[in-house]
Amino acid sequence: MLRPLLPRCGALKPLSSQSSRLLWRGARWYSLKPEASTATLRDIDPTKLTITKTTKPGPLLKKEDLVFGKTFTDHMVSIEWDQTHGWHDPRIVPYQNLSLDPASCVLHYAFECFEGMKAYKDKQGRIRLFRPDKNMARLNKSAARIALPTFTDRNLIDILAEFARLEARFIPDARGYSLYLRPTMIGTQKTLGVSKPGSALLYVIASPVGPYYPTGFRAVSLEATDYAVRAWPGGVGDKKLGANYAPCVVPAVEAMSRGFQQNLWLFGPEQYVTEVGTMNFFVALRDRETGQRELVTAPLDGTILEGVTRDSVLALARERLVPQGWRVSERKYTMAELDEAAREGRLLEAFGSGTAAIVSPVRAISWRGKLINCGLKENEESGEVATKMKDWIEARQYGDEEHEWSYLC
Amino acid sequence: MLRPLLPRCGALKPLSSQSSRLLWRGARWYSLKPEASTATLRDIDPTKLTITKTTKPGPLLKKEDLVFGKTFTDHMVSIEWDQTHGWHDPRIVPYQNLSLDPASCVLHYAFECFEGMKAYKDKQGRIRLFRPDKNMARLNKSAARIALPTFTDRNLIDILAEFARLEARFIPDARGYSLYLRPTMIGTQKTLGVSKPGSALLYVIASPVGPYYPTGFRAVSLEATDYAVRAWPGGVGDKKLGANYAPCVVPAVEAMSRGFQQNLWLFGPEQYVTEVGTMNFFVALRDRETGQRELVTAPLDGTILEGVTRDSVLALARERLVPQGWRVSERKYTMAELDEAAREGRLLEAFGSGTAAIVSPVRAISWRGKLINCGLKENEESGEVATKMKDWIEARQYGDEEHEWSYLC
Repeated sequence: MLRPLLPRCGALKPLSSQSSRLLWRGARWYSLKPEASTATLRDIDPTKLTITKTTKPGPLLKKEDLVFGKTFTDHMVSIEWDQTHGWHDPRIVPYQNLSLDPASCVLHYAFECFEGMKAYKDKQGRIRLFRPDKNMARLNKSAARIALPTFTDRNLIDILAEFARLEARFIPDARGYSLYLRPTMIGTQKTLGVSKPGSALLYVIASPVGPYYPTGFRAVSLEATDYAVRAWPGGVGDKKLGANYAPCVVPAVEAMSRGFQQNLWLFGPEQYVTEVGTMNFFVALRDRETGQRELVTAPLDGTILEGVTRDSVLALARERLVPQGWRVSERKYTMAELDEAAREGRLLEAFGSGTAAIVSPVRAISWRGKLINCGLKENEESGEVATKMKDWIEARQYGDEEHEWSYLC
Repeated sequence: MLRPLLPRCGALKPLSSQSSRLLWRGARWYSLKPEASTATLRDIDPTKLTITKTTKPGPLLKKEDLVFGKTFTDHMVSIEWDQTHGWHDPRIVPYQNLSLDPASCVLHYAFECFEGMKAYKDKQGRIRLFRPDKNMARLNKSAARIALPTFTDRNLIDILAEFARLEARFIPDARGYSLYLRPTMIGTQKTLGVSKPGSALLYVIASPVGPYYPTGFRAVSLEATDYAVRAWPGGVGDKKLGANYAPCVVPAVEAMSRGFQQNLWLFGPEQYVTEVGTMNFFVALRDRETGQRELVTAPLDGTILEGVTRDSVLALARERLVPQGWRVSERKYTMAELDEAAREGRLLEAFGSGTAAIVSPVRAISWRGKLINCGLKENEESGEVATKMKDWIEARQYGDEEHEWSYLC
């Protein structure tokens, strides 16, 4: 009866005059569910996967020449969705341009979300993913938040595994190398109304990448950003949406223009520390009273991306640092707290965490005109926790340590 | 010496070890400007415009069948940009799909911004734009905020005028009809690093549209959203970025599932009223003490889109309502204030404002379990101010009233 269409941009669409009056009288509350039927739509079906191999396999770069996200493998995964049928049969096809109507909603309203994950080659030459269930769960959460379709996690993992095996030749046989996988979902509806997309495309491209620190850690310095805010409670900063990324670039460029490598995001008048650039952020502190060491990161309060590496760092810290007397805290902490700890010699180290670098040690933070030393000595490029975490996580990524986090393709 | 490149996603890029140490010692502050050279790049040059006409002109729909943003004209404007040369020669070409690398940054990080504006046909058959300078200024502000290139406003207006003249046959000769123009800028860099795009595309498509209320106003009812926040101080909610739109859909769908036509955005524990759906929002109140009438909208504090229609409503209200004793206020106001005014019979009317509908009268707002009557009688579909504003603005859009807001193409 009532069409659950969304109004076009810059306008409000009235219901029928009658229902409008019913509403106004408060006589009746409709409870239309606009997607009551989507449960019957087709899920992603990995058994229907078809593979069309390229007739022009690309050359392999020398592994020293690999640059993150610059060159891609021969193929891509492509799975279309529409609101009538659900997910179409998944395909692996030669890497190719997308042909998009200029009215496509991904180009106007940022109907787009993505994941970053890696495929590793173990000592036996087998391909492994790292905690792909985490990425799939997050991709579904991101998609749902912007009215894009969802799917059963496991079904896409099967396809990713097949894809990673197919592209295995692009992964150099050397420690630190991997194949970065970029699952991406975009809305493809080609009308300008701001509404739930009636069609979408899920695709996956892959870029071979080298170790982030080929010659060992290199600590960076940060500028705390006090004029721009990345995320807000009730916003979408905890989802991996394209919408969260473009606005990050200018503050980063600003920080670089003053000689820093990245910006540190703060929140609120309390100047809570939240994230660094596009990474989660950790600090190690020593308690003033008890001397206990504490590994701290901001809590998942809706303003923090639910990083897979963040979660891995926390899990390993609870498993291996807590028995050594550490406390592990997901709690709010402020720049003033860091400043005070640094002045008292209790700020032991700080690092970002993310898929590309695993951990990225931080030397100093510029805040309110002063430079806060994060605890590294002049000749140190990484603290104890960051160094250990990189080793511990890599051991599971490359399968040196058999663990449920590692998924054998 | 130092490369002002941004780090890849999920990682921090160190400077050279030396500069890093310099920073850490606080001995020297760099002030690299990453774009010192862009001032010498080429601007958009309307004198270089080339037009390639379609060989297959499309049919004209019956004007009653036009749907906003669903069908498009025969051509599109296309202007490429790269960081070496600046803006390439502008082109008008047949409407066509874009061929985009799947790694294009617009698809991953929402490097995209747009404008919504209309071309009108006046009684003499001449084509007119409405306040295009406002749209161009806003597009440049939006682009700069996400590190996309900017241009001289007037140069794109010249091209838009040429484009609108070329597509004039799509504008029906009837009041209320117009050609919706959608200038869109996207980042086209095809690498996955989160950084300032090295290439971009500005394009303009056009969709013929009919009057929003072909049979007269139809008031809508809203649900105040208390679980999601559209924008926040220090964020990008005042820019017309794609990033601000996809996250709006789920709250709107939720409101519709309960029988409302759109959601009303609030901010903060005070429940300040900010916007409605994708429109600005106005209320008319009567002062309890003095009886003076007041037209109120939220101030441009960084959380409100700088609507061209909003600005036009304010200007006309100052010009024509203030002499009649009205007060016109850009100030914060809360749901509690509206609720109280409604209970006391002092909430005279409420309406959204935007390019598509000009004004969209609101009958009621659902808030905290009650339905607030916005002042319309049962048999009324619009209040006095909304009705007048639509007439006043249309008179300038269609050139009935000669005014500097109307730009003759």
